[in-house]
Amino acid sequence: MNEFQIIQKYFATKKLTQANKIAKIGDDAAVFNISNSMDIVQSLDTLVEGVHFPINASAEALGYRALAVCISDIAAMGAIPHSFLMGLTLPKISTAWLEKFSQGLADCAQKHNIALIGGDTTKGPLCISIQCQGLVPKGASLLRSGAKAGDIICITGELGDAAASLNYLTADKPNNNQHAITQLLKKFWYPESQIQVSQELRAINATSAIDVSDGLLQDLNHIVSTSNVGAEINLASIPISNALMSLVTKEEALKYALYGGDDYTLIVTIPKKNQQQLNLLQQQFPQIKQIGVITSNSNQIIDENKKPLYITGYQHKWNSN
Amino acid sequence: MNEFQIIQKYFATKKLTQANKIAKIGDDAAVFNISNSMDIVQSLDTLVEGVHFPINASAEALGYRALAVCISDIAAMGAIPHSFLMGLTLPKISTAWLEKFSQGLADCAQKHNIALIGGDTTKGPLCISIQCQGLVPKGASLLRSGAKAGDIICITGELGDAAASLNYLTADKPNNNQHAITQLLKKFWYPESQIQVSQELRAINATSAIDVSDGLLQDLNHIVSTSNVGAEINLASIPISNALMSLVTKEEALKYALYGGDDYTLIVTIPKKNQQQLNLLQQQFPQIKQIGVITSNSNQIIDENKKPLYITGYQHKWNSN
Repeated sequence: MNEFQIIQKYFATKKLTQANKIAKIGDDAAVFNISNSMDIVQSLDTLVEGVHFPINASAEALGYRALAVCISDIAAMGAIPHSFLMGLTLPKISTAWLEKFSQGLADCAQKHNIALIGGDTTKGPLCISIQCQGLVPKGASLLRSGAKAGDIICITGELGDAAASLNYLTADKPNNNQHAITQLLKKFWYPESQIQVSQELRAINATSAIDVSDGLLQDLNHIVSTSNVGAEINLASIPISNALMSLVTKEEALKYALYGGDDYTLIVTIPKKNQQQLNLLQQQFPQIKQIGVITSNSNQIIDENKKPLYITGYQHKWNSN
Repeated sequence: MNEFQIIQKYFATKKLTQANKIAKIGDDAAVFNISNSMDIVQSLDTLVEGVHFPINASAEALGYRALAVCISDIAAMGAIPHSFLMGLTLPKISTAWLEKFSQGLADCAQKHNIALIGGDTTKGPLCISIQCQGLVPKGASLLRSGAKAGDIICITGELGDAAASLNYLTADKPNNNQHAITQLLKKFWYPESQIQVSQELRAINATSAIDVSDGLLQDLNHIVSTSNVGAEINLASIPISNALMSLVTKEEALKYALYGGDDYTLIVTIPKKNQQQLNLLQQQFPQIKQIGVITSNSNQIIDENKKPLYITGYQHKWNSN
């Protein structure tokens, strides 16, 4: 039983959601209307030591990343970050750790002009839950369900670095390509902000979006299945960093890009008729790459040779009992 | 260093809060304005196994309590619950556990007409973070800072049961007063909803409110210190349950009531001029008790004999390093 199945079976139940008359559920973030002009979007992410980050990780990097991955969901909705609450569970008080952690958190908060407005501090195994929220014009959220056949599939940054970096997170042994490893680790700990690019893509009528947290194919599959469409991906056009290419074979790099998680770039679909606007936008944001098209072949993702791509990705899998 | 000091030193910093132009921080919940007529209030609570509840606790009771304690903060603001997000960290998948937990959660959600709208499910030591939010007319939130000298101090339910129940949470040995123990445990696991009574008290111009999570004196002290007033408590008027009185001495019961946490009743202050309306309200809600008055003796809490009361309460204290 995986995370999606647990949510579906136990928590997306009628009893738990029936009081909900206004929110959309199951997207990158929940959406509800708060005024004549604005909607609020809300996401919550939990990071657990030893599961989402290694034991003895840099507190400063951890503070940055914990907030960044939550803000990524706000970007994936096409919203502007507003504020956040944090549940911080600590095994002990280390003032050195707290200083660095709050510094990393503050750096990310300042970069996104988002304020900490509340939360809870408790004792226990190291775990960070951040709930953050953003604002978006009423009805304008970028949902997973809006992709249409013919839309251009874009990705807003290089893929695979973060997943590949997991091999080096706790590695102590020297590597003769330390510079490339440092690049990868930076992508893991300090995901680039996607807020501005998401605003620009929303402005040219993006039809759907999702952030790549579980791997390109798995996250694209969320768009494909909720939009009831298919996708054709040009594997050769998937952006892969020089750093990653210098560390692994081309085949391995592609595997990381397709199936690896933690990238926190966005997959965004754009109507074909806005091709020209998209091309112009790419001059300003060269990290945006066109990697394929949405098709009408329901729930099928294929490559440029029409070969079906096996959909899987990074997931925390548990044994049932 | 305690929880309040950690928050003050590391997280209520200028850098982390400067983007905040609209939220009030450090109350039961954060407040920000969302429309011409409404404010939203938001709280986040984390419960950790072995810290906030015993290992192998009833999953159903735990599901109920996790949401109830978060909704308690919404009640303490005088708001109506709207929706919640949950971060659930599980060591393993037990379908039996998930069924019971989601059942308890749903019971509490239905009771409060509040919907689960999003969240995150992860692997790790059992930990539940719930962020819930409510709506309140613009500017009408019950803050901790509004108490005025002369106000009547009310409490909305019996005190001490939950704290006393901690002695029996994991006790296996038979007790000849099992009925009373069951009553206490019920108060711990299923805190009574304070939403309606809080609405009624807000309607008669309550000036401040807080929920009793850390003990009557410690929580009253939050009102007293942020309102820059004092308080005189009539110890004899503090409501204590028959169940508690049947299990411990009168002196011990009072200790639990003053210093024990986890009650999740409300302390609410009401202007003296609304005494008559309060008396009428008490006929409808007999659980409301008048236990003292706000004084102008800044930061002093005294009893009916003018004896200063030592302010402390339940707190997760850690060792610094």
